[in-house]
Amino acid sequence: MQVEITREYIDQVEEAIERKDSEFILSTMADMYPADITTVLYELDANESKYVMDLLPPEVGAEILSDLDYDIRTDFLHYFTSAEIARYINLMHSDDAVDILNEQSVQTREEVLALLENEEKSEDILDLLHYEEDCAGGLMAKELIKVNLNWRVRQCIEEIRRQAEDVERIYTVYVVDNKDILVGRVSVKALLLSRDDKLVKDIYSTDVISIESFRDENEVVSVMQKYDLEAIPVVNIQGRLLGRITIDDVVDVMQEQAELSRQLMTGISENVEEDDSVFRISRSRIPWLIIGMVGGLLAAQFMGMFEKDIAILPALALFVPLITATGGNVGIQSSSIIIQTLSSNAVMFENFAQRIFKLIMVALLNALIISALVFSFTYLLRSDLTLAMVVSLALFSVVMLASMMGTITPMVLDKFGINPAVAAGPFITTANDLLGLAIYFGVAHLLYNL
Amino acid sequence: MQVEITREYIDQVEEAIERKDSEFILSTMADMYPADITTVLYELDANESKYVMDLLPPEVGAEILSDLDYDIRTDFLHYFTSAEIARYINLMHSDDAVDILNEQSVQTREEVLALLENEEKSEDILDLLHYEEDCAGGLMAKELIKVNLNWRVRQCIEEIRRQAEDVERIYTVYVVDNKDILVGRVSVKALLLSRDDKLVKDIYSTDVISIESFRDENEVVSVMQKYDLEAIPVVNIQGRLLGRITIDDVVDVMQEQAELSRQLMTGISENVEEDDSVFRISRSRIPWLIIGMVGGLLAAQFMGMFEKDIAILPALALFVPLITATGGNVGIQSSSIIIQTLSSNAVMFENFAQRIFKLIMVALLNALIISALVFSFTYLLRSDLTLAMVVSLALFSVVMLASMMGTITPMVLDKFGINPAVAAGPFITTANDLLGLAIYFGVAHLLYNL
Repeated sequence: MQVEITREYIDQVEEAIERKDSEFILSTMADMYPADITTVLYELDANESKYVMDLLPPEVGAEILSDLDYDIRTDFLHYFTSAEIARYINLMHSDDAVDILNEQSVQTREEVLALLENEEKSEDILDLLHYEEDCAGGLMAKELIKVNLNWRVRQCIEEIRRQAEDVERIYTVYVVDNKDILVGRVSVKALLLSRDDKLVKDIYSTDVISIESFRDENEVVSVMQKYDLEAIPVVNIQGRLLGRITIDDVVDVMQEQAELSRQLMTGISENVEEDDSVFRISRSRIPWLIIGMVGGLLAAQFMGMFEKDIAILPALALFVPLITATGGNVGIQSSSIIIQTLSSNAVMFENFAQRIFKLIMVALLNALIISALVFSFTYLLRSDLTLAMVVSLALFSVVMLASMMGTITPMVLDKFGINPAVAAGPFITTANDLLGLAIYFGVAHLLYNL
Repeated sequence: MQVEITREYIDQVEEAIERKDSEFILSTMADMYPADITTVLYELDANESKYVMDLLPPEVGAEILSDLDYDIRTDFLHYFTSAEIARYINLMHSDDAVDILNEQSVQTREEVLALLENEEKSEDILDLLHYEEDCAGGLMAKELIKVNLNWRVRQCIEEIRRQAEDVERIYTVYVVDNKDILVGRVSVKALLLSRDDKLVKDIYSTDVISIESFRDENEVVSVMQKYDLEAIPVVNIQGRLLGRITIDDVVDVMQEQAELSRQLMTGISENVEEDDSVFRISRSRIPWLIIGMVGGLLAAQFMGMFEKDIAILPALALFVPLITATGGNVGIQSSSIIIQTLSSNAVMFENFAQRIFKLIMVALLNALIISALVFSFTYLLRSDLTLAMVVSLALFSVVMLASMMGTITPMVLDKFGINPAVAAGPFITTANDLLGLAIYFGVAHLLYNL
């Protein structure tokens, strides 16, 4: 049943926990989806949540644990013994189990592994623990349905029935040869439509897209999206079938990436949500504010060199916000388009020289438009030809240089393996502020012969 | 076969088109996935692409058309007659077909609909054309597998075999009653594991999450994500089963949304990619640059009111970049967290007063830290106590006010049905610049008794 979780219900649950009324909790939660129970637990404190978890059937508890945000889960699992964790792990898919074990201390991890009853699961988990978290091997689950090339349809259906116990959703039935090399796939549909004594090799399709276990998670996302796959088999370098990645894992990766770029672009250094504590939200924001502050103080020091110029010609100071704001806007626009290209793994047939040429043309066009407009307005507003020339010439240079910076910084960061989205945030804005001021006062100093 | 598309191959294809060498094109593309052929077509001009499309089997052409970016597709389809479009539409899923028809002129749409041979498809499409594009009805496809509550397993398997012709991937088999009301689901697994003469009503599960056709696409995304669904049935207000939405459509919606917020946040007003033309990239950037420019000129006009103050005390001007940059950073940080909350449909148990109180506490804490630091540094650098007080007091007020603005603007925009991510872009930065300057010069004027 889809339920609306209300503040009243949360209060009732808290009171029920207080008076140890397991009846109320079990009866109201019996018809709820684990995802809804998770929403309730987020509103309780750890001790209360633990009380609820102990009451729930272990299968539901396992789903809830798989669902939880990883930082909350790590804290929450401190309230559980290794034996309790092992009981849940036994009921999870291998990929979720490995995620949780990776978050534990070495000691807890070893204890839990030793306590696992299901030997096949334990082996699967040990195997998966070898892979880096952000590669195809780290995303895959071992649960899949595979059949041998030389089997008959009858044998396949039996095997599917047997293996289906483990596999919640049948995506594709993979076909392997005697050495366990992935050679193709056969759809449930094809199996249902074929006579029982047909051989797999006569009905299977060799048309299967797979990915090697060492590939980066971004590659997994782009391959699955490009070919519109809802599951992809993972193979080792020899082509042996190791596991499979399903689209829900990919959706999670996409979300994490979107969240990460959002944080980088907005200068928030931790994963916070609106209902986190004041102290935590504050802590996540202060680092970038301090970087911005240092940039602002550097700008003050730098402009201090021109203090006499400003005293003679205070009108100069009036256009400082125009210069810094335009530099910032152009820098973010330029970096944004490069970051998109870099992160989409798009095929890029234009070579480096062509791309730089085009970038210069775009910057030139926009710089001309903006500086022509600013020249006209400044002259109209202040009737000072030299000032209008200084401001518009400086603005022209700022647009050109901020475009370059905005384009080149993400490319350089990417080359060094740093997430280029860093460049779209306060960093590039601050750098552009300083650059813009240097140009502006340089041009003014020259044109006014100050 | 997964292939690497090379510049050389594109050149060869272009030459082959030039000399009308259909042999080369067909033989090299025969083993390619439609998604890879799409990549090739992106590199050709419209006439060349049309030549290739005419050679390819219509099933492949239909997949390629479904895949194309919508703006490119709209242009490209001008090269096709209505009869040609109808031939492809016949081979598409109903949801893709409707997307394409919605992009055509009324005349083309009517012509194509009249030319459709498959009557069932034609009815499905007419039905789907009634829904708004960004609601559940606009995302759904009519192709699904449903069985009646009173059927036997044998009859279901036969029905699946029959319907499976249309449905590429069997996600779930939906169970309806005699009035076509969705009552539950039965897994292929359960059907395979049951005896042939069992009744559906004895093995089906009532546990099915559905969504009404009028729900917004964001709701579809959040429900499917929350409950980890790979397909969701769409029902009308009476509960009648209308169609189903699959996770690949949701992935597309997620991508569009991420792309849209990226554009709004970076001040890019059109969907451009790095390989678009210079003119188009320029056009997509200029509107926000002009808005920023107007803001900058307003700031200049405003500061002009304090020109005499600056002439007396040029040091005042030095801290303008610090004030505007900090205001901008704080504004973007604040709006970002609200936008995330608004777009995630997160359950929000804290009431409005609590949220505003917490926001004030966070702003207060950060404002205190930043202004204390700036007070110390300014005093150290300039040994002017009044100046240090002016700058830090102004900064304190700017952080407080920019936090408010950054929080309240997205909430107000959201109330009026405007995408709140607009507020995270140059708009809020520009507004914060003006606000910050007003505070700064106001405070200076007061404290210095200018």
